[in-house]
Amino acid sequence: MKIGILGTGVVGQTIAEKLVQLGHQVMIGTRDIKATLAKTGKDNFGRPSVNEWLKINTKIQLGTLSEAASFGEFIVNATSGTGSIDALKMAGDNNLANKVLLDISNPLDFSKGMPPTLTVCNTDSLAEQIQRTFPKTKVVKSLNTLTAMLMVNPGLLAESTNIFLNGNDSNAKSEVKKLLTTFGWNEKDIIDMGDITTARGTEQILPIWVRLWGTLQTPMFNFKIVIGKS
Amino acid sequence: MKIGILGTGVVGQTIAEKLVQLGHQVMIGTRDIKATLAKTGKDNFGRPSVNEWLKINTKIQLGTLSEAASFGEFIVNATSGTGSIDALKMAGDNNLANKVLLDISNPLDFSKGMPPTLTVCNTDSLAEQIQRTFPKTKVVKSLNTLTAMLMVNPGLLAESTNIFLNGNDSNAKSEVKKLLTTFGWNEKDIIDMGDITTARGTEQILPIWVRLWGTLQTPMFNFKIVIGKS
Repeated sequence: MKIGILGTGVVGQTIAEKLVQLGHQVMIGTRDIKATLAKTGKDNFGRPSVNEWLKINTKIQLGTLSEAASFGEFIVNATSGTGSIDALKMAGDNNLANKVLLDISNPLDFSKGMPPTLTVCNTDSLAEQIQRTFPKTKVVKSLNTLTAMLMVNPGLLAESTNIFLNGNDSNAKSEVKKLLTTFGWNEKDIIDMGDITTARGTEQILPIWVRLWGTLQTPMFNFKIVIGKS
Repeated sequence: MKIGILGTGVVGQTIAEKLVQLGHQVMIGTRDIKATLAKTGKDNFGRPSVNEWLKINTKIQLGTLSEAASFGEFIVNATSGTGSIDALKMAGDNNLANKVLLDISNPLDFSKGMPPTLTVCNTDSLAEQIQRTFPKTKVVKSLNTLTAMLMVNPGLLAESTNIFLNGNDSNAKSEVKKLLTTFGWNEKDIIDMGDITTARGTEQILPIWVRLWGTLQTPMFNFKIVIGKS
């Protein structure tokens, strides 16, 4: 499959590497190619600059947001939540229309320090804002509830855990679910929560996620839903 | 221990029954004793009226909110979140001062239909509002992230799961933790998240909790935090 990834941060890079390993063609999109390639040194997560990273991951193409969205038959939103709507507008309504958009972004605002707050919550969600702004796009929220490394390596955890799907289009959710199983997720552990409004719940997990990161001193954890004894 | 429980709903009743079983003296408080005793029939959860329930649970005393708060050396807030601050004011600042208040309430507003919204979230929480309104009280939020039956019977779940503590006073959290172990919780499964501001995270779990209830068709579930393989 030809996949366009929007955002060159740790999430975009991690997903891109996995997709290439799985045999997909990947273009990763950034706002400003020149500025992105000009960056040197490691990022906050200890990862190499995009420039260095592309030299190692030679199969991954770099493009503008618009080029990546145009390239992909399937799109991944891995941009920062506070900039997602703008980035998607730059990617272009026409380039996103009638495609599945896997939305991994979280509406976290770090501008007032730690812990971050949410730019939208309670009666709305970023996923809903995206769906409203791009009504022809099939938005499916998933993978936003755990750290990038675990998104594509769920087996690194001591037990199987859960991830969630939120979206209005059943076929789009099936397509995302299928892709997620190739990442190593068990089909039974992927919980379809319902329509896009259920993303309010998954996005509002982030405040406890951030605090657990502090308490556990590691981002390598995830939620497992345990039900009653049968 | 003499324990005052505020709120005669399913949470208050369930906690009261457990505490009596454990040998504590319990008074359960309501806004209006006459109105509470006048109710007949089963409630929304299929439980008997308070009047009938008290006839079965003869060791549990009924009082006003003020009487229950005055009676207890340890207080449990099991009122509806939308009415908690008012109920606690009726219980009386002096009756709550210098005592531990285990706050189980959730700021859920069902007045606009399902799913409920939160009356406070993101940059504040109900637990913080309570702590600010009653600065002499040692507020500890816990048990608000699962259904009443499981609060006092965690062993009904297929695996051990987690609950959280949020509060400013370490001794108060230790006291609550000790009580929770007598409910059947393993000490290692009770996660101290930090000060009272961490209650934002645990209260904001409710939106996904409510949706999971719908998806799983049962409230008998809980979250387990799974960490990386060691």
